[in-house]
Amino acid sequence: MPTRNADQTAAKLLRAAHDLLVERAGQNASVSDICARADVNVAMVKYCFGSKDGLLDALLERALRQLATELDRLADTDLAPSVKLRRHVAGIVRNYVRFPYVNRLMNERLLTADPESVDRIGASFAVPARDWYATLLLEGRAQEGWREIDPTVFFFAIVGLCEFLFSARPLLERGFGESIDDPLVQRFSEQIADLAVMGIAPGAPVASDSCDTGRHDR
Amino acid sequence: MPTRNADQTAAKLLRAAHDLLVERAGQNASVSDICARADVNVAMVKYCFGSKDGLLDALLERALRQLATELDRLADTDLAPSVKLRRHVAGIVRNYVRFPYVNRLMNERLLTADPESVDRIGASFAVPARDWYATLLLEGRAQEGWREIDPTVFFFAIVGLCEFLFSARPLLERGFGESIDDPLVQRFSEQIADLAVMGIAPGAPVASDSCDTGRHDR
Repeated sequence: MPTRNADQTAAKLLRAAHDLLVERAGQNASVSDICARADVNVAMVKYCFGSKDGLLDALLERALRQLATELDRLADTDLAPSVKLRRHVAGIVRNYVRFPYVNRLMNERLLTADPESVDRIGASFAVPARDWYATLLLEGRAQEGWREIDPTVFFFAIVGLCEFLFSARPLLERGFGESIDDPLVQRFSEQIADLAVMGIAPGAPVASDSCDTGRHDR
Repeated sequence: MPTRNADQTAAKLLRAAHDLLVERAGQNASVSDICARADVNVAMVKYCFGSKDGLLDALLERALRQLATELDRLADTDLAPSVKLRRHVAGIVRNYVRFPYVNRLMNERLLTADPESVDRIGASFAVPARDWYATLLLEGRAQEGWREIDPTVFFFAIVGLCEFLFSARPLLERGFGESIDDPLVQRFSEQIADLAVMGIAPGAPVASDSCDTGRHDR
């Protein structure tokens, strides 16, 4: 099969998998569902991606690269660091809404800890994001007096702040009887952006408790 | 088998599963490994818990109830709200270190979204935690002028802030070449507690950007 046709088939399969997973709010789609939607023979999954997992890896990588591209775009602006951070948080949340399968696929790969999948997530998303945070933190410190924080800590803090609502969606729905609709997403996005921006802003530590933190239950 | 013996066997199995999962940093342990460690016949897993998943559900519930108990203990103190929040964040982090399987078990159950498992996580942890946050947020508002925030949003924000480092541990190790050792955990715990406490403290929103947040890439 000529490469161009294979590329077109791969693109069709990715689009079909994306559409099905969006319709199903990130829940599983079978190879035959994906191929039926793409109007492609099931053998093409193996030909183009090696396996279903290969297709899903490519899909996840594409969604994560989208996030990295948005970081590059923000880095190129002259916005104040706190505005960049606010837009970045809103951007991550928007990305989780737009790609509701990102969390599930990422968490599945982190649970199995398959080295190759983890390395792809690292290269397409985690390393560029942490580098971006390191630069942003320096800018924020210079321009707005932000407090000092380890960029690795900041990476896990900010992504965690944004992502748990989506990975713990069943808790929201069954535990609290709420659902991920537009008003909730809007409120969530604005309020966690406030937490992030105000959390890193200058200010005296409130009620510092460092003498006995971590020791109160011994 | 008399109930008392069955209870003792169940306790032995839970202890053995806990020890094995701690030694393996949360990675899987087989039923035969657990029974060998507990010195118990493999048939007892079915007898006491119905299945291996039943045993793991009970183990997860026990670890989550530990967190809920710590919330009750904090609620009964006269500490300032920001000190309670700081200690709570340190407590969640400490719990993830002490029970390194909590994330994995919780994320597995959230991925399958099995209604019964989700309801157990809701009842043993999510609902008590969100109720505790709702009360804390009122206290913080009254005593320290905290900003207003939806307790549901605050629940996902605070737990997410604490948990992503642990669920994305392979990214830390392979992506960044770091590991979850004491200095990192200490730094992480203190810095995210600062983010949480300063993030909710009173203060003018810095560089508010609400007019175009979410729209910059359309």
